[in-house]
Amino acid sequence: MSLATRDALEFPDSDRVFLEPHLPAQDTPQIDMPFTTLTFATSLDSSLALSPGARTVLSGPQSKAMTHYLRSRHDGILIGVGTALADDPGLNCRISGVGGYGKDGLDGQPRPVVIDSTARWDFSEDSKLFQLCRQGRGRAPWIITALAEPPAEKKALLERYGGKFISLQMKIAENGKYIIDWKALLVTLRTNGLQSVMIEGGGQVINSLLAPASMSLIDSVIVTIAPTWLGRGGVVVSPDRRFDEGGNPMSAARLKNVKWYPFGEDVVLCGQIKN
Amino acid sequence: MSLATRDALEFPDSDRVFLEPHLPAQDTPQIDMPFTTLTFATSLDSSLALSPGARTVLSGPQSKAMTHYLRSRHDGILIGVGTALADDPGLNCRISGVGGYGKDGLDGQPRPVVIDSTARWDFSEDSKLFQLCRQGRGRAPWIITALAEPPAEKKALLERYGGKFISLQMKIAENGKYIIDWKALLVTLRTNGLQSVMIEGGGQVINSLLAPASMSLIDSVIVTIAPTWLGRGGVVVSPDRRFDEGGNPMSAARLKNVKWYPFGEDVVLCGQIKN
Repeated sequence: MSLATRDALEFPDSDRVFLEPHLPAQDTPQIDMPFTTLTFATSLDSSLALSPGARTVLSGPQSKAMTHYLRSRHDGILIGVGTALADDPGLNCRISGVGGYGKDGLDGQPRPVVIDSTARWDFSEDSKLFQLCRQGRGRAPWIITALAEPPAEKKALLERYGGKFISLQMKIAENGKYIIDWKALLVTLRTNGLQSVMIEGGGQVINSLLAPASMSLIDSVIVTIAPTWLGRGGVVVSPDRRFDEGGNPMSAARLKNVKWYPFGEDVVLCGQIKN
Repeated sequence: MSLATRDALEFPDSDRVFLEPHLPAQDTPQIDMPFTTLTFATSLDSSLALSPGARTVLSGPQSKAMTHYLRSRHDGILIGVGTALADDPGLNCRISGVGGYGKDGLDGQPRPVVIDSTARWDFSEDSKLFQLCRQGRGRAPWIITALAEPPAEKKALLERYGGKFISLQMKIAENGKYIIDWKALLVTLRTNGLQSVMIEGGGQVINSLLAPASMSLIDSVIVTIAPTWLGRGGVVVSPDRRFDEGGNPMSAARLKNVKWYPFGEDVVLCGQIKN
């Protein structure tokens, strides 16, 4: 058994059925914007991880295989630089039968996209993502940055593997941080050829996307919830507080067309943002 | 149609079936401790309410009827004083067919229990709970206090309606707050005749009960989750962080024997604490 085959994950057809209505259609081209799926796994107290950088096994093996299946159904998978720094993620798809896992080429391998406004991700040839590239088991990343001229050395390394920096104008908030213009970002990804994008995390990216200005850009939400409380101090998904016209607090974001699928010990919530 | 009948809630037999394995058995007497159920409804970001005191409609009418059905299956329902102050709650059971709702007497009406260590709840004849007592639609509360001699006036009012103060020794934490000794409290409730208790909230009470010292006292957990993010700043269920022997953060609490029941737009999670 080859290395690649040994690492491959199986996700049975019987489980694919319930996800199908929540995934990008395989034959309808997206014109201006990619089909955008928001997906992540949390604890009951809405934590993605015990702390930034802590590898937190929240959900079972079935849920892991599901994540990889979802990756196989999207052209791109997007994370924030915090997750890249914390996790040294592979960001590839290990479902049996995709490129690198039982098949030649990179068919079914999504494009990793990392939002890194200041280009601070200090990747190298040893980063897991580039190891997978060398093994023919994943694509090189695109890095979205606010810098007009990203560092030359990083640029060269990226391009050697077939990745690239994409410079995108970003506003700066009062706290000095860059603000993600989600619409411009998604349009840019579509212009660069992605028909569908799955946004995976981390906390800051998800909470930013769930803000009023951008939540309508989400086509599908797929959240896995594990029956565990991680406890205070974790990396929490919870958007900023919203207020109604009278100044009273209101729900930050609601879902419609909701379906809950018990899945092993976890539950999978699928729905769409209610505008 | 009488007032009581108009207010009554229906909870169909078909929905009662899935809850049955998670409820106190109707024929097995509890010897030392009451059967203890922890139940509440949260948003996806684990908030009970938008803010303390904000009436937050999280879950649908089905879930509301479920809560009242659960109340009919417990001898007592317990809340913290914060919830009593914020909500002026009725704490009765409105399921069609219980005492006060289509039947004489108070059969099926649980005993409200309020933890109020310093006896600061400033109830009066006008409090909703006492209104319901006068209408024969609910029982007067028991108030658990750390005071050996609770205020005489409040005591007289309580006792006039058939309620009482129960004094319980409580330790004081470094921050000056009383610590709930859950074991002593539950034993006391059993001694006072309750075979089963449903603990409903609020956030402080739930987080305290989910601490390592007390979580094993919980026999059953029933959590309703609504497909909404309330946003930051709500009343959050998330126990204090735990650390393993090596000082690394670990899950605060896990569930076993987990079942997820999609229920309208919500999901109901039933399980037991994993020790």
